[in-house]
Amino acid sequence: MTNKTNPFQGSLFQGIITYPITPFSVNGEVDTKTLSTLIEQLINSGSHAIAPLGSTGESAYLNDDEWAEVAQASIKAVNKRLPVIVGVSDLTTQNAVKRAKIAEKSGADAIMVLPVSYWKLTPDEIFSHYAQIADAVSLPIMVYNNPATSGIDMSPELIVQLFKSIDNVTMVKESTGDIQRMHKIRLLANGELPFYNGSNPLALEAFAAGATGWCTAAPNIISQWPFKLYQAIQNNDIVLARELFYKQLPLLEFILKGGLPTTIKAGLALKGLPVGEPRKPLQALDDVGNKKLHSLLKALEEIA
Amino acid sequence: MTNKTNPFQGSLFQGIITYPITPFSVNGEVDTKTLSTLIEQLINSGSHAIAPLGSTGESAYLNDDEWAEVAQASIKAVNKRLPVIVGVSDLTTQNAVKRAKIAEKSGADAIMVLPVSYWKLTPDEIFSHYAQIADAVSLPIMVYNNPATSGIDMSPELIVQLFKSIDNVTMVKESTGDIQRMHKIRLLANGELPFYNGSNPLALEAFAAGATGWCTAAPNIISQWPFKLYQAIQNNDIVLARELFYKQLPLLEFILKGGLPTTIKAGLALKGLPVGEPRKPLQALDDVGNKKLHSLLKALEEIA
Amino acid sequence: MTNKTNPFQGSLFQGIITYPITPFSVNGEVDTKTLSTLIEQLINSGSHAIAPLGSTGESAYLNDDEWAEVAQASIKAVNKRLPVIVGVSDLTTQNAVKRAKIAEKSGADAIMVLPVSYWKLTPDEIFSHYAQIADAVSLPIMVYNNPATSGIDMSPELIVQLFKSIDNVTMVKESTGDIQRMHKIRLLANGELPFYNGSNPLALEAFAAGATGWCTAAPNIISQWPFKLYQAIQNNDIVLARELFYKQLPLLEFILKGGLPTTIKAGLALKGLPVGEPRKPLQALDDVGNKKLHSLLKALEEIA
Amino acid sequence: MTNKTNPFQGSLFQGIITYPITPFSVNGEVDTKTLSTLIEQLINSGSHAIAPLGSTGESAYLNDDEWAEVAQASIKAVNKRLPVIVGVSDLTTQNAVKRAKIAEKSGADAIMVLPVSYWKLTPDEIFSHYAQIADAVSLPIMVYNNPATSGIDMSPELIVQLFKSIDNVTMVKESTGDIQRMHKIRLLANGELPFYNGSNPLALEAFAAGATGWCTAAPNIISQWPFKLYQAIQNNDIVLARELFYKQLPLLEFILKGGLPTTIKAGLALKGLPVGEPRKPLQALDDVGNKKLHSLLKALEEIA
Repeated sequence: MTNKTNPFQGSLFQGIITYPITPFSVNGEVDTKTLSTLIEQLINSGSHAIAPLGSTGESAYLNDDEWAEVAQASIKAVNKRLPVIVGVSDLTTQNAVKRAKIAEKSGADAIMVLPVSYWKLTPDEIFSHYAQIADAVSLPIMVYNNPATSGIDMSPELIVQLFKSIDNVTMVKESTGDIQRMHKIRLLANGELPFYNGSNPLALEAFAAGATGWCTAAPNIISQWPFKLYQAIQNNDIVLARELFYKQLPLLEFILKGGLPTTIKAGLALKGLPVGEPRKPLQALDDVGNKKLHSLLKALEEIA
Repeated sequence: MTNKTNPFQGSLFQGIITYPITPFSVNGEVDTKTLSTLIEQLINSGSHAIAPLGSTGESAYLNDDEWAEVAQASIKAVNKRLPVIVGVSDLTTQNAVKRAKIAEKSGADAIMVLPVSYWKLTPDEIFSHYAQIADAVSLPIMVYNNPATSGIDMSPELIVQLFKSIDNVTMVKESTGDIQRMHKIRLLANGELPFYNGSNPLALEAFAAGATGWCTAAPNIISQWPFKLYQAIQNNDIVLARELFYKQLPLLEFILKGGLPTTIKAGLALKGLPVGEPRKPLQALDDVGNKKLHSLLKALEEIA
Repeated sequence: MTNKTNPFQGSLFQGIITYPITPFSVNGEVDTKTLSTLIEQLINSGSHAIAPLGSTGESAYLNDDEWAEVAQASIKAVNKRLPVIVGVSDLTTQNAVKRAKIAEKSGADAIMVLPVSYWKLTPDEIFSHYAQIADAVSLPIMVYNNPATSGIDMSPELIVQLFKSIDNVTMVKESTGDIQRMHKIRLLANGELPFYNGSNPLALEAFAAGATGWCTAAPNIISQWPFKLYQAIQNNDIVLARELFYKQLPLLEFILKGGLPTTIKAGLALKGLPVGEPRKPLQALDDVGNKKLHSLLKALEEIA
Repeated sequence: MTNKTNPFQGSLFQGIITYPITPFSVNGEVDTKTLSTLIEQLINSGSHAIAPLGSTGESAYLNDDEWAEVAQASIKAVNKRLPVIVGVSDLTTQNAVKRAKIAEKSGADAIMVLPVSYWKLTPDEIFSHYAQIADAVSLPIMVYNNPATSGIDMSPELIVQLFKSIDNVTMVKESTGDIQRMHKIRLLANGELPFYNGSNPLALEAFAAGATGWCTAAPNIISQWPFKLYQAIQNNDIVLARELFYKQLPLLEFILKGGLPTTIKAGLALKGLPVGEPRKPLQALDDVGNKKLHSLLKALEEIA
């Protein structure tokens, strides 16, 4: 593949961007030691970047101190071997700015921002939220659209406006699962805004449509499959990519439907790395779910 | 109206339950002095109960200290003249429990709980969330369903199950704006679970369907109209209630569409009580909105 | 109730507008003899108007000859004892015009028009469709909005525009079940456009909101209940109306959910008037449904 | 590509299945002479099959005689040079069976069936509808799912059940535009049920996901682009396919949004083949639309 077909060949972030869960100890405290072990595994599996404190990392359920602890422990564990993108989303602009500054000071390579809110936000309110965070740091910003969790849906038009108007907005993670959003972003930005797919069951088609990367928690428990799929795409072999995709699709659907913290934490336990339960009101995966997950992992030869 | 037609005649909470906004000072801090002034006005206008720290109160945007400050200041300002129901919703079960205990200790008469979350919750997770909060206090609990802000939608079946299984769950505030939910709750609970309407433009029909009360922020800026409507309903005069409803409907639609903290705060300023701006990313009402709101208030003779 | 509270007191169509099913013989042909018997029952029960060839009348499944046969037989059976409104909807404008002319020539008092289509229609296309039908006849036209069956959703704005721009558009039947549509129509038309409710489980609230009538197939099988409800509304007694409404609500929900031709035809058979099955692909109500329907009719004392 | 990666290599229908519009004369009658000219163009452009009387062919707006005339004229025009699949959908089962028989007798190679209805159909009703049509003919049947026009949405589970239970159901055209439906069909049917994409803006990703063909009206006006895209897919060159797709995407979105009969007929006129207007209530494309369409065709070098 030449630069002509993929102008983001040289981007810092491309390929498989992996989202670690946040391990908790038995009494519910953040467990940075296990987090380091997990990150080591993710690097060894072939991740192209590490993204702590995303939806998968239960960022929304952590208090400010815990959030900072996870950000700093993750950056330290990666230790500059890969680029790190830290989720700094918060309900108030003030606190998101504060987190962005901590991320920058702690050595993050980029930050990811989801405009999570309680009341619906107008496009102007969303724009100002991003602008104020962007002003506070010099890091590249990945705009993150995930209305299913955040309750805020950003149109492709608004996303491209953020990219064109704010210097350090340089990437967008689209998690609606709607491939037409990616088409629209590509057309509106003349192909200059790299988009990343955040919806696991859309991985094949997002790459077909030209996604620069796949933002996914799947490598936590299926260490090889996302990387093989990406390699096939890099080799312009859609026939092989399709075959690899359909093999992992049942697992990808399962973790989406069951909630990423819940299912990924269960999968790690099944694979021998206990990471605790998700924080309440989220609950651990039940027995039926665990059996199903076990069989899905076995079918992919990720478990004995 | 006899007890036969309204079995909740004797309930603590009925009629117009008023939701005060949370005033902020110029530098963005909670302003409890102005809050007391506002609550005094709401009591004088004829409110049947006061409900601080709801959606209107920007509860979601306050930190724990601010939340406790508003809870205590509100209870103190009401000073037992009316029942007080305090919103204790939080993203984690642990923090919602903590807030429930503070509310009880501070003298609240009831608490309101919205199962706000980031990841979607299963019915089991929602049930446990309520059960744990209910276990921690002896106050009556108002279940609050508002998927447009919380992202969690509780079916009438689940709501009635909470009522039947958990002793101190005794009321439900339905804010979907779907009258069929109220019908379903009434049929499923054999009319024993009092339901309250939280969708302003549904006020007339919710009362027609048998709602025990109307949970509303409107009395902050239209001091007389909701009470007159309720009085007509009490008098079994739907013809007059309809007339009163249609008069205030344009205002009710405006505050819903524009966001309650944004529009109510603007309305209070227009009426001569400055209460500061909503917390960012929420923004103050713009000029066009202020002009529209002014004309709506004038049409209702709430402003000169 | 005075003219002041209901400016449509003198309208031709108000109260309970009843929609007869179209009976078929064993070999699937239109059975006008049974249709006459049914219409006689509907008049005797207290209907304020009769509306053949609506959704309930399986108009969409009849060929042109059958349609004309039912229109003429219905008008003849009513024999000017009540006003008759005939559904003339068809997929093409040309055929809808043809049916409108037949209805007028046959003695209909008004026609009802649903903009049913296959491809979505623009507001302009819908407007022209109505304008051409209106030009072809001098009868009053009831605009009918029912996106769940027709696939075309008309906004309150468009409906009021039809009313203001086309002389013989004088009524609207709203079947979305969304009470806010009725509010909007009332506000946009300054209360001058009479609106009728076509969603059975919304009957109580539509009357509360000021509906001039209830368009319903329910009187085919529950001969007394809709009339009693309307009487209570006429008496400005919402407490009694509510009580009557909740009693019949389970039946109203059942016939909506099961499809009107399917459930109403089953109910008529249960009550002793066999009217044949709905036309395929629609199927007759199954055993479980028949048992449920029987118990609902029994609870309302409509069956022994 | 080998048989292993595409088990339907030998299917009768694969590649670009082209849907001709139905030309009308100035006075609105079916114009079979122009239809023959159009079909000749479509064959010359490289179509792999011809599919008259689909949604694009305004089948829903034709009476029975017109429908038969178009079916027979199309089959005659193709003259066995390509396989022909005839749309036989109708609102009643009886008439759909009748059309299926006419199609078979007239020499069609397959029929396409959309369960169009007025009242929502249960899965049982849909199944019986297909079973009765299938019993009446020995032709292969393409199940067609297009809820946006038909109002009936068939789940992947139901579609696969039709395939497994009814012998001559051998293909499915999925037009929801939801790529996850195709994934589900592939997984549920173990890859044995060939699926075809009917949503133009999904063309690239449907092929990536393994679609056997693309059912499209686009070749009526962009003679080369769909074929080039398919060729790239056949060559396992997703990079080239992506480039070709994005070039034609604005045109594909335009014809979807504007309605296929409306926009395709306008495009044919712009390219020098007048085919009349769509049937009312559908209207011809307006001036703004024609200008936009002209520029889109020019950008694709389909017009001078």
